[in-house]
Amino acid sequence: MQIAELTTPALLLDSSAFEHNLSTLASVFPGPSLRPHVKAHKSTDIARAQLRHGHQGFTCATIREVEVLAGAGLGDDLLLANEVMDARRIGDCVATTGATVILAVDSSETILAAANGGVGDVVIDINIGLPRCGATLSDVGRLADLARSKGLNVRGVMGYEGHLMMELDRSKQRAKVEAAFLTLREAHEIVGGELVSGGGTGTFAIHKELGMVTEVQCGSYCLMDSHYAQHGFDFRQALLLLATIIHVSDQGWMVADCGLKANGMDHGNPSVNGAEVLFCSDEHITFVPTPGTSLSKSRPGDRVLITPAHCDPTVAYHEQYWLVDGGADGLSSLTQSELAAETVHGRWAVDMRAW
Amino acid sequence: MQIAELTTPALLLDSSAFEHNLSTLASVFPGPSLRPHVKAHKSTDIARAQLRHGHQGFTCATIREVEVLAGAGLGDDLLLANEVMDARRIGDCVATTGATVILAVDSSETILAAANGGVGDVVIDINIGLPRCGATLSDVGRLADLARSKGLNVRGVMGYEGHLMMELDRSKQRAKVEAAFLTLREAHEIVGGELVSGGGTGTFAIHKELGMVTEVQCGSYCLMDSHYAQHGFDFRQALLLLATIIHVSDQGWMVADCGLKANGMDHGNPSVNGAEVLFCSDEHITFVPTPGTSLSKSRPGDRVLITPAHCDPTVAYHEQYWLVDGGADGLSSLTQSELAAETVHGRWAVDMRAW
Repeated sequence: MQIAELTTPALLLDSSAFEHNLSTLASVFPGPSLRPHVKAHKSTDIARAQLRHGHQGFTCATIREVEVLAGAGLGDDLLLANEVMDARRIGDCVATTGATVILAVDSSETILAAANGGVGDVVIDINIGLPRCGATLSDVGRLADLARSKGLNVRGVMGYEGHLMMELDRSKQRAKVEAAFLTLREAHEIVGGELVSGGGTGTFAIHKELGMVTEVQCGSYCLMDSHYAQHGFDFRQALLLLATIIHVSDQGWMVADCGLKANGMDHGNPSVNGAEVLFCSDEHITFVPTPGTSLSKSRPGDRVLITPAHCDPTVAYHEQYWLVDGGADGLSSLTQSELAAETVHGRWAVDMRAW
Repeated sequence: MQIAELTTPALLLDSSAFEHNLSTLASVFPGPSLRPHVKAHKSTDIARAQLRHGHQGFTCATIREVEVLAGAGLGDDLLLANEVMDARRIGDCVATTGATVILAVDSSETILAAANGGVGDVVIDINIGLPRCGATLSDVGRLADLARSKGLNVRGVMGYEGHLMMELDRSKQRAKVEAAFLTLREAHEIVGGELVSGGGTGTFAIHKELGMVTEVQCGSYCLMDSHYAQHGFDFRQALLLLATIIHVSDQGWMVADCGLKANGMDHGNPSVNGAEVLFCSDEHITFVPTPGTSLSKSRPGDRVLITPAHCDPTVAYHEQYWLVDGGADGLSSLTQSELAAETVHGRWAVDMRAW
């Protein structure tokens, strides 16, 4: 199949860029020192690729992700890095599939839910600055004791510095991450266990320098988006949206069939190479191409590539990735006719959506 | 089943509010004068409810919506109100199901795609001010002639005043809508045909006064969201998100399990009654409850209701609606324990997602 035959909007996965991203991070955090977060890609096919690069454990954000990974035989070492109250689903999944699932807990209620739900392993989730979940340092000892008294195996601690992912001043970011993870290390002193888990695509390099965690939880690195691209890391844009131009106005704008139901919009509009994006509607993106570009000569029926602003919620709208090989220069380097003629060499399901 | 047994986040459809909304608009635009837009709800079950209220024709935004409606026996009179280049899928759908599908066209390319794709019926889509699709008035005659020369049955014209939906000054809005639809009526004079289609939930009342269209295309009215609620129309909030509180911070915030992958975010954060929403993460919403409210006394495991900011892209993340009856006062009037004990009396699939 060629790209020209795809129904649009379509998620494209550039396999060369994707493999580059997996190799790059695996060389920095090999094997179990990277526990890839599947929330970014929601695909057991991508998880299998990460396994081939040596990472056997996965981080999950939802029970559905745990269930689907376990059902696909990828459940040897799963961390559900969020609190849940319906922990019975985890217990049932472990009983049915034999998976190992470590659940984040941060309160008496979440510990009791875990114990009553048949969960075996937990980590204590520590608040390290993001106003979201996580226990305070003063409560950590009590929680670890409570968990152990309920028969739970306390495997260690985790913390997520989501508020520091997009600090672009590297020295400021390093100082803030270090301060946050000093808190996590203090918590670990109290809790014990072998795991000190944290970090993401925006902070992996600092974690390599600091060495304060036993594993990082990066997710977006394999796909990337225009938001994380601001860091300038050596990850390539592997995730693109293919759209069809359906309208060319004589007043200078064009419209393609890839709107806000095909794009997570919390980071703003997606980008179009060689164009200024005006706005997204439900099913449309309106943009003004730069004069003189090949895009500016497009007609209805031509294809255009769109770069997502935020990969995670973009992927969650789609049923599959179509695999194409953009080579060393990427799909964006192709002319429109070259793009249309590109071979689609696979389909990977987005099979961990919903909850 | 009770609400307490639902996996969260979950879409709730308040059947009393929903029936109120359907009755209210059917009394203003009865029968074929309303062609409900299914892009808002993406559910054949909801389309069937709209059919029971007398509306036999539907407006669609995607070919998938056309295919699923036609496959469900709801294809007697469908309008695909967007341009498409892969019109062969429409032709195939008509040939397979016997559906009647009218396709919007606005250029030589979209007309040729329709004719070559086996489409029978079209409307000429006119640009009436929104910088998106639609032909200019000067091009309309040529396009209608081209369409007829290719054997297409030109059923009339359509225009969508998306840029005027949220003009909250009613007299300004009326003047702008009237000017826009004078253009559409001019186009209709040139094109002919029985259809003059346009309008939405934000402009239906003005269209009732103006009488310039033969049918309105309202979609959101049946569900509603906090964005359209600013108009103060007599539509009730029928769509709510049920979430579970998973964290209560001693610093004043709470966290529930309903984040930006469960909410269309292009209109900003969703709302929580009796609380200020701080931010959404992928799977979480962090909010500060107003002191003294029952919400402020919540513990992990309690349920909380969230009002979407934009219904269409919110629904598109979910697999189903759970039907509950909020009665005359709505679900938001219930205490948390009453809410948990509410009966879930049905499940309606969101079966028109993707493309």
